[in-house]
Order: sequence, then structure tokens, then C-alpha cells
Amino acid sequence: MSRKRVRYIWVPLIIALIAIPAGYYYVEWSKGGSGAGLYSRQWLPDAVFAYWNPDDFYQSTGAVVGEFAGEQCIACHAAVTPGIVKDWQASRHANPGNGKATVYCSDCHGNNHQALHLPVPEVCGTCHAAQHVQFEDEKRYGFPSHALAMERALDAKHFVDKPKAEVTACLQCHSVAGKCDSCHTRHRFSAAEARRPEACITCHSGPPHPDDETYFASAHGQLYLGEGKEWDWSKPLRKGNYKGPTCAYCHMGDGKHQVADKSIWKFGIKQINPLTSGNEVKREQWVALCSDCHESEWSRQQLAGLDAERKQAWKKLYSAEAILKGLRSQNILYPAAGERPAYPADWLDSIWPRARVGFFEGQASAFYNVSPIERDYFEMWYFDNLGAYKGAAHGDQDAVTRGHAAMEHDLAVIEKEAERLRSLAEQEQQEQHQRPDASELWLSGDYTEFNREQN
Amino acid sequence: MSRKRVRYIWVPLIIALIAIPAGYYYVEWSKGGSGAGLYSRQWLPDAVFAYWNPDDFYQSTGAVVGEFAGEQCIACHAAVTPGIVKDWQASRHANPGNGKATVYCSDCHGNNHQALHLPVPEVCGTCHAAQHVQFEDEKRYGFPSHALAMERALDAKHFVDKPKAEVTACLQCHSVAGKCDSCHTRHRFSAAEARRPEACITCHSGPPHPDDETYFASAHGQLYLGEGKEWDWSKPLRKGNYKGPTCAYCHMGDGKHQVADKSIWKFGIKQINPLTSGNEVKREQWVALCSDCHESEWSRQQLAGLDAERKQAWKKLYSAEAILKGLRSQNILYPAAGERPAYPADWLDSIWPRARVGFFEGQASAFYNVSPIERDYFEMWYFDNLGAYKGAAHGDQDAVTRGHAAMEHDLAVIEKEAERLRSLAEQEQQEQHQRPDASELWLSGDYTEFNREQN
Amino acid sequence: MSRKRVRYIWVPLIIALIAIPAGYYYVEWSKGGSGAGLYSRQWLPDAVFAYWNPDDFYQSTGAVVGEFAGEQCIACHAAVTPGIVKDWQASRHANPGNGKATVYCSDCHGNNHQALHLPVPEVCGTCHAAQHVQFEDEKRYGFPSHALAMERALDAKHFVDKPKAEVTACLQCHSVAGKCDSCHTRHRFSAAEARRPEACITCHSGPPHPDDETYFASAHGQLYLGEGKEWDWSKPLRKGNYKGPTCAYCHMGDGKHQVADKSIWKFGIKQINPLTSGNEVKREQWVALCSDCHESEWSRQQLAGLDAERKQAWKKLYSAEAILKGLRSQNILYPAAGERPAYPADWLDSIWPRARVGFFEGQASAFYNVSPIERDYFEMWYFDNLGAYKGAAHGDQDAVTRGHAAMEHDLAVIEKEAERLRSLAEQEQQEQHQRPDASELWLSGDYTEFNREQN
Repeated sequence: MSRKRVRYIWVPLIIALIAIPAGYYYVEWSKGGSGAGLYSRQWLPDAVFAYWNPDDFYQSTGAVVGEFAGEQCIACHAAVTPGIVKDWQASRHANPGNGKATVYCSDCHGNNHQALHLPVPEVCGTCHAAQHVQFEDEKRYGFPSHALAMERALDAKHFVDKPKAEVTACLQCHSVAGKCDSCHTRHRFSAAEARRPEACITCHSGPPHPDDETYFASAHGQLYLGEGKEWDWSKPLRKGNYKGPTCAYCHMGDGKHQVADKSIWKFGIKQINPLTSGNEVKREQWVALCSDCHESEWSRQQLAGLDAERKQAWKKLYSAEAILKGLRSQNILYPAAGERPAYPADWLDSIWPRARVGFFEGQASAFYNVSPIERDYFEMWYFDNLGAYKGAAHGDQDAVTRGHAAMEHDLAVIEKEAERLRSLAEQEQQEQHQRPDASELWLSGDYTEFNREQN
Repeated sequence: MSRKRVRYIWVPLIIALIAIPAGYYYVEWSKGGSGAGLYSRQWLPDAVFAYWNPDDFYQSTGAVVGEFAGEQCIACHAAVTPGIVKDWQASRHANPGNGKATVYCSDCHGNNHQALHLPVPEVCGTCHAAQHVQFEDEKRYGFPSHALAMERALDAKHFVDKPKAEVTACLQCHSVAGKCDSCHTRHRFSAAEARRPEACITCHSGPPHPDDETYFASAHGQLYLGEGKEWDWSKPLRKGNYKGPTCAYCHMGDGKHQVADKSIWKFGIKQINPLTSGNEVKREQWVALCSDCHESEWSRQQLAGLDAERKQAWKKLYSAEAILKGLRSQNILYPAAGERPAYPADWLDSIWPRARVGFFEGQASAFYNVSPIERDYFEMWYFDNLGAYKGAAHGDQDAVTRGHAAMEHDLAVIEKEAERLRSLAEQEQQEQHQRPDASELWLSGDYTEFNREQN
Repeated sequence: MSRKRVRYIWVPLIIALIAIPAGYYYVEWSKGGSGAGLYSRQWLPDAVFAYWNPDDFYQSTGAVVGEFAGEQCIACHAAVTPGIVKDWQASRHANPGNGKATVYCSDCHGNNHQALHLPVPEVCGTCHAAQHVQFEDEKRYGFPSHALAMERALDAKHFVDKPKAEVTACLQCHSVAGKCDSCHTRHRFSAAEARRPEACITCHSGPPHPDDETYFASAHGQLYLGEGKEWDWSKPLRKGNYKGPTCAYCHMGDGKHQVADKSIWKFGIKQINPLTSGNEVKREQWVALCSDCHESEWSRQQLAGLDAERKQAWKKLYSAEAILKGLRSQNILYPAAGERPAYPADWLDSIWPRARVGFFEGQASAFYNVSPIERDYFEMWYFDNLGAYKGAAHGDQDAVTRGHAAMEHDLAVIEKEAERLRSLAEQEQQEQHQRPDASELWLSGDYTEFNREQN
């Protein structure tokens, strides 16, 4: 073996031995600030994070001194917070039956009133081990998933880039990763409650994920709205128990607390091959689910319709993206990337400069700090495309039509605006003059100040 | 009688004798393809059409061999599709009472498991003759009507022009023409269910027909939402039986399966004279309907308010249309009609060329393949105008305000854009140069590819 | 004392003695027309005003002659208007209990069938004095308030400026000032009904006040939607009586008919200092209200989040406003204020000319008759801003994100359009030519005709 050959092995090996621990150390250091996530050193938690991310930030503020347990807690709280005591009294925790012990406040919150804690999933998992394990298992599937919802949100650059007043709003729902009462509300923690669509749609609503609208607009949703109040919600989510399907019936059959492993189309946020062998298996799981009421051929056609809808949607999205890439490569985006304010978390750019164009950096950045044509594309992708997907997935065909009509509108607007930008650029070249300097409006206007506010 | 005079009679007569049968033959030939509708030769049915247009396309795919009837069907399906068996067991078909015979699966689907059929209205009409006759009678009133919903959709040029993935979505609702379970869901087929608004709004929702939003936002809808669950839905839709009105209470009083003959304003899609003698009669029918709770003077004022709202709306629409017609006549639409891709079903254009500008060809074409200013008009007309109408008709005054504010916005945008197009055209003439060629973006871009996909 | 000093006292005193009565006289004269409000001489009431503003406009139109009372009314109306008789029969008016006298139709409407009146709040106040006094007390807080809703609407210039068909729609809700059945619907007048959210959201819905959407999208609203039907609505709105809060539970605790005195943020329509001592007191009232279920620290954080959201929102609004003020001061709004049609109620302008730019004159004018960039600002302010506020106030965080994303979109569009207008103006100056005359489109087009229609 020549010396050269030896070098091919040892050089990368030594680099790897240095780089991997260094990377780990860097991420650990990065996450070691007073905030949380990759940018923990760039932001300070608001007090409300105590409730949305209790594992990292909750500190008891109670003025009451002493240790209390069992009925002692109830005695006082029946007067102080009667609502939650009534809820607890109506819960299985208060009436476990079968000779099981009552689960009191202190069992989950601790005894010491000055060091109470908010129960995180691990606490609930002490008794509800199967559900906890399933919930954690979602992490294997990456994002989107419930169990990674908070971590990935705090890791995103735009969380620290944008004013906290705005991005904090997102975290109320993303807090699902760190507490069970997003679905089983305090302090009844009812399984029956969590089986109803309302438990899901507090979060699964709004333009990028209109699960509520699309489900309720479907024949399934209308069945629920019309007759759901007569259904027996104490029954498990199992074949023959419900006249119509609900969120949990389809996505959490038999009460399985893992929704990621049945997902084929990945929330509509990436183009996937719907016909891999893995997806064919999932597809048959869906067909089996629908067989409570539908023949398998019908269900397969519905799924094929979803495949076709996605294909059309991506075709439109790629068309729009191609136009924007063309404009960028000809440097006729206006204002151009370099004419816009830097993102606060972009300090690395001073060492290693990168062009910044919203959507090329991923979804969330394109919310802001981009030129109007880029935002049009972002909204096409994030709102209209995802709305159409959810409509196709949930049987709300009107949402499909609406989403695709909107995407065509967007595409026509983008195409027209691109034409205008090109024509403008050509004219400027002919007339030998530069276009007006964008700097005043974009670089020092009030608008850009938002992006510079320290979180 | 001179020879010339004779010619005036015989020539048209002979032409008519040739042309009328030829026209009939042409339409028959045209509808004789493997698809359906006037363009049946231009598209192939997806498998899902089997379910939405069963009369034309359903073919049983069951692998099970044999003839089965009555309890034999139930015995097997209680395990295979338990949900629908439970529904049937709770239906009047299973419990007809009064010594009537049970209606089994085989009575509607047939006995031969390899040649089962999906029941079309004619099948239901065997027993429910009055309802079937009323349903078919709607055809007299043309479109929009339930009974012609599918036929007219498939006759529309844009159905075959657009990618199937998009237009197929529309047909889930338009399938109401060919099956009764759009309103009476399988397999309970409950009259009580169909009396509730939910039965209607699975389809009657979304921008061009927001019947759901406008009803639910009205005082009537709020009564239903707040207290409807306590109403006795087994009662006929008759005076004094319901505290508040619902879709069916007003539009299908006494369970009459014909909604077209009471319509005055025709869904808001055409301007009508609301004061013809025929409409005065309908108006008094509406006033009588409201008299359960309202004095007649009040009801008449509400209807007069709807007349006034429509008059204002049409005034705005005609203003916008006049602007567009002006632009078209001066040939300053951009891209102009000729600069856009031809519609796939436009093969006749090679023989008999016609200019194509979306809205001049009717509503649906304007969804796509038009310049932005035309689309703005289309959306003004199809979304904002129709939303205002439904608001006025259903007592959701907020929707009226919103719709008219939106129309004023649209009109201002159209007016501004027209000014820009005119100024641009003037400038081009002065400078003796042509505007940039639109062909690359509009004629060979990805966008236009959608319109060329073979359905 | 010098003569000059004496003049300082007497001259203003005499002017005041003349001007104040003259002002009173002018306003009285102005309100003395056949319409109502400050512009009563500019419009004639439609018949529907009889029902929405009965105190000013209702005149009985009954053909029936005679005096009737008590059971006599019922005897006839059970056939003529059975719905309302059934409602009355189910009401406490018909079944007062405790030996109280039955409240018959004639007690509220009068005996003389040709001179019946519609009961205004004063009539209801005869028995329900506390509620009536509370309701009237709201007037102290100015607008927005229920008790001034109609008066302030009719005092607004745009009411008479715009075609009646449009503005009349607004008054259905604003009629709450003059009748109690906006919340307690005829003729059951149930307290239980008015405790439900549905009683409020018939009016509290739509873009500028999406109280319905934001409440129902919140965890509180989902609790109500999922389980509210099992709650006992006969209970007073008091701690421990309801599992979740509703509109009335928070805003009308203990049934107090005064919602203005707890308002801190004033509907989001003006920027306020949230930390005045008065607001700190209100804040603690809110925290106490939430203590049924939440610890006080949590509630304070939620309110602090609302403060932060408002601060961000105003920052964006002021940025947009600054851009528009700049354009106006440089006279490059297009069409400029003077190039637009005068408002019909602007006759005073002939004596005392004023520039008219929508938003500078207040919210409502900016709905119409302004240039597109001004309307963009108006919509940013009136729809997106208020939507974000309601989201933050009601715990619908998705509405916060959505509203702020929309405001950023608006701001980017306004910024871009401002840039375009400036560049256009610069170019015109360079080329020594005027921009195209806007008059034809804006001053004599169909669009402007709307503003000239006599109400």
C-alpha cells in the first residue's frame, strides 16, 4: 500500500474524530443558553414559556408554604379554583374503581407547595406507560410530529428572528410536545373528550393545516355535526362503534398515541412517491379502516384521487418556483436579496456570506423579509397548496377546487409580475440607468425594524 | 305566388329538415364516447366516476360469486362492513312497521354478487314515487338544479379542458343528480337526517355558494346551533313544528323534493326582474312561509332589501364588465386573447376561429387561462357577488357588507389596472415600440401545460 | 384691571354664550329631518327601519281593527303566527310562577291593534329595571357600546354617503341599541339562550370583529363545542357553574348588562396604555375571573401577551400610516384626493374645502372612494389588525399568527407600491410630462355613481 493510499484513510478518519465531537460540543453549547433550542443564546424566555415548555422553564411561584397531599389539596382548592376541582371530581382519577387508589393533585404536582411542578408526559407515563411510549415513538419519524413539535419550533431560525409577540403565538399549539393536556384538558383528562374532533382542532386549524374546515365540510364531518352528540364516546375507537369517522378514529385507531407511522403524504409539505412498497402497505391499512362502511374499490379510488391531486399541485408549485429561480439567477428580484435587511441570527453571514431569499431557505423564513413576488409564492405553497391537500385528504372537494383555483390565480399573478420585472430590467439596461435604490424603504424603514428587535 | 315567394318557404324548410336531424345526430354522436356529456369523446372516466355517475359508469368488481338475498347479505356483511349493517338495522328499511315487507340489500342492489348495481334515483323511486317525480321535475327549470347537476357539469367545456385531478373534485357534489344518498346518507337513509342543515351544506358551502356560512351566521342559524339539538326532527317540515327555519324547512317545505320552482333570484348568477307577476306570486309564498313567526310587512321588507342589494350588485358588476369590454375592444388586454394558449377542446377553432376571453364565454372558463384583470373580474363576480347575495338571502347582513366592500375593492383595482394598461398602450404608441412579447411565459410556460393535459 | 384684561374675559364669554346654544340648535335642526342622526335631512328611511329603529320609525300597519288583550291575542295568533305563540307559551312570561301575573302580548305591544308598538328597551325595563339601567349606563363609555350602536351609525357620514342597500345591512346588528330581542330572541326571551355564545355571535362575527371564529377556535370554544350541550344553562354566570367560559360568562358575569366598563383594549381600534392604574384594576378583575380554573400567574402572562401583541400591531400600523402620510405630503397619491368624486354629504366643502383622504377621516370612509394603496392600509388596519387582536384576546393563537403574517404582507405591498408611486413621480418630473388625467375613470365612471346615489 502506497503512502498516498494510507493518507486516504487516515486524513478523513482524523478529521472525523475531531469534527464529530466538535459538532456535538457546538450544538450542546448552542443549546446551553437561557432560552432553548439551537438559538437558546439569542433569546430570553417570557414567563408564559413556563406553561408551554414546563420541562425547561416552569418554576413554582406559589406563596403558600407547606406540604400538602390528597384531600388536603382538595379542601383548599374547592374554594380557590372550584372549576378544576369539579373537573377532577368527575374524572377517573377521582373515581378509579376496581379498588385502585385515587390519583390526587399531589401525585402529579408534588407535595411541596413552593416547589410544585407541572406534569410533563413522563409524569403521566408513570401510569399510562403504553401511551407515553407510543407518543415518544413518533420522534423516529422526524418532523412534523407531536413529540418534536416544540423542539423543532425553537430550533428554527425565524423563532429568534421575529418579534416574540408574534412567534410566541405558534408555541401554544407546539406545546403539545411537553404536556398531555393539549388533548385531554385539565383536570378531567377524559379519554372520551380526546376522541372528539374538538380535542384536535384547537390546534389543527388555520390556513396551513385546515383540518377542522376540511373535516367538518366533508360528509364525514357533517355526520358528526348532525348526529355526533348521540354517539357513545365512552367506546373505544374501533370498527362498528361509531356511525362516522373522526380525527382520532382514523389517525389514532384503538387509541394508539402515534400518528406518524400511517402518514403517506407527509402533511403535503414535501413531494413523496405515493407508490413505494411501504406506502402501498399504509394504503391498505387505510382501505381496511374505511371498510367499516365502504367497499375497498371505493376507498382505493379516493386514495388515487389524492395522488392525482398532489401531482397536479406539485406541478403548479414547481412552475412557480422555476419562475422565481429564473428571476434570482438573472438578479432581477426587487429588492434583491442583498438589498434587504439581514436576519438577526445571521451573524454567521459576516464570516460565511450567503444570499438570502426566503423560500430557498425553507418555509418559515418566507413569511417575511422577502419581495412581494416571493411572498406570493410562499402563500401559494403554504396556504393554497396545503388547503387543497387537506381538502383532498379529508373529502372536502370544495377545498380542492378552491385551493387549485387559488394556485392558478397565484401562478398567473407570479407570471405577470415576473414579466413586469423582466421588462423593467430590460428597459433599465436600454436606458443605461439603474433602478431606484431600494435601500431607504427596505433597509432602514420601520418595517425592517421588526426583524431587528431583540427577543 | 311568384317563384321567389315559393323559394322563401321551401328553402328554409328544406334546410330545417336537414339541419335539425343533423344537429340531433351530432349531439348524439358527440355524447356517444366513452366519457359522458358533450365532450364524451375527449376524456376517459376515472374509476371514481363509477360512484359519482353510477348510471353511466358503475361496474361491479366483486370477487364473490353467487346469488344472495335478504338475511344472507346481512349475515356476511355484519362482519365485512359492520358500520353500514348497523345503519341499515336502525333504518325504516329494516323496520318498516305496518306489516310492510323489510327492504333488504338485494332489493336495491340486486341478487347476483358479480353484477351488483348502485341504486340510482329510479331504483329509489320504485317505492318513493312522489319524491322521485318531484326531483325529476326540477329539470324543467334548467340549471342550476339538482337533477341536471351532473349532466351540465360534464357538458361544460372546462370539464374536459382542465386536468381531471381538479375538475373531478367538483363532481362529488354534482353527483347529487344520480343518487339519493347525497342527502340521505347510506344506509339509514333517514328523513330526519335530511331535514337538518348538515345534509345540505356538505355541498352548499364554499365561495360561490356560501349557504352554510350565511345561514349559520344568521339569527336563524344561531337558533339552530344553540337549540336545534332539542328539536324533534321526526316531525314534518310544517308550520309550528320547528322553533327556527332550516335549509329544508324553507326550500323543501312539507318534504317537497323540488327546490327550483320557488327560486326568484336564480342563485344570484343572472340578473332577473324580481317584480314579474310570476315572481310576485313566489314572493307571497315566501311571505306565507315566514308567517310562522314574522308579520307579513316585515317579510316583505326583507325581500325588498334583497331586491335592492341585487340591484346594487349588478350595477357594480356591469361597471367592471364595461371596463373590460373597453379594454378588449381597444385590444389592450395583456396578454391578449390571441396570445394565450388555445383550450384543448378548441379544435373547432381551427375551422371557425373565435376570440377567447374567459368571462365572455361564461363563468367557468374564467377560472383560468385569462389575464389577471379578467380573473379579478371573475372573482368579483363569482365569489364576492355571490357571497353578498347569499348573505342577503339568508339574513347574514355581515356577508352583505363584506361582499359589497370586496366588490368595491375589486372595482377600484380593476379601474386602476385598466388605467395602467391604457397608459402603457398610449406610451407604446408614442414611442413607436411594441410591448414585450408575451408568448414565452403564456404560450410555452409550465402554466399553460395544465391546459394541454389530456383528460 | 385694564380694559384689555376685561376684554379677555368678556369677548370669549359672549362668543361662548352665542356659539354654544347655536351649536345645540344646529345639531337639533340637523337631527330634525325625516331620517335620523346628524344627516337626518339627507336620507329617507326604508320601511325596514321600522323594525331596526322602532322608536323613531315604527308605525303599525295592521289591518285588524279593535282592542284586544290577554288570551284574546293568543286565540287568534295561535293560528296566524303559531311559531311565536309556541315560543311565548314556553317562556317565563307565560309561566311566571310565584303567583306573579302572566305577561301577555298586550302588556308589551299595547291593546289597540291599529296602533301596536314594538317594545323598546324602556318597555322591557318596566319589569327588568336593573338590566335596563345597566344597559343604558354603557353610554358613559362612548362608542363602541351596545346602547349607542344605532345612534353613532346614523351619525356617521358614510351612512348617508353610500347606497342604502349596502349600509342598511350594518344596521341589522346596530339595532341592538333599540330592542332587547337581538340577544333574547322573540318570544321566549330566554335568559338561558342569551347565556350561550350563539346569542352574541349573530352580530359578533365577520372580519372586523371575528369574536365567533376566535372564541370557537380557542381551547375554551372547543370545550363549549364538544361538551356545552351537557351544561346546565339555567344556572347564573358564576364561578363553578360552567366547565368552560363563554362570551357572556367573561363579559357579562352574574348577568350584568354592561360590558364596557371592563374593557381595557377598546376593541383594538385605538392604541391605549394598558398599564394605567385604572387598567391595572380591570386586569385584576380579569385575573379573578380566570381563577375558576387558572392560577393567577398564568392569567397575568396571558394578559401580558396581549399587551405585547398590541404593541407589535401598532408598530406595524404606524409604519404603514407613515408611508401614506409621506405620499400625501408629496402629493403623489394617485388618484389624488382632489381627483376623486366628492362625497355626497360634502356640501359643506363648497364653503369650507377640505382634502379628503379616506383613512385620515376615520375608519369608515376608507372603505371606498380611495386609491388602492389607501384601501390596502384600511384593510390592514380594519381586518388583519383587528383579527389579530381578537385572536390574542380570545386565546386563538392561530389568528394572531395569521393576522400578523397578513399585516406583514400588507406592509410589504404598501412599501412596494409606495416605491412604485415615488419612482413614477420622479420619472414624470424628469420627462416634464404630467401623469395621465385620472378624471375620466374616477370622476365620471360608473364606480363613482354609487357615491352619488341619493339615499
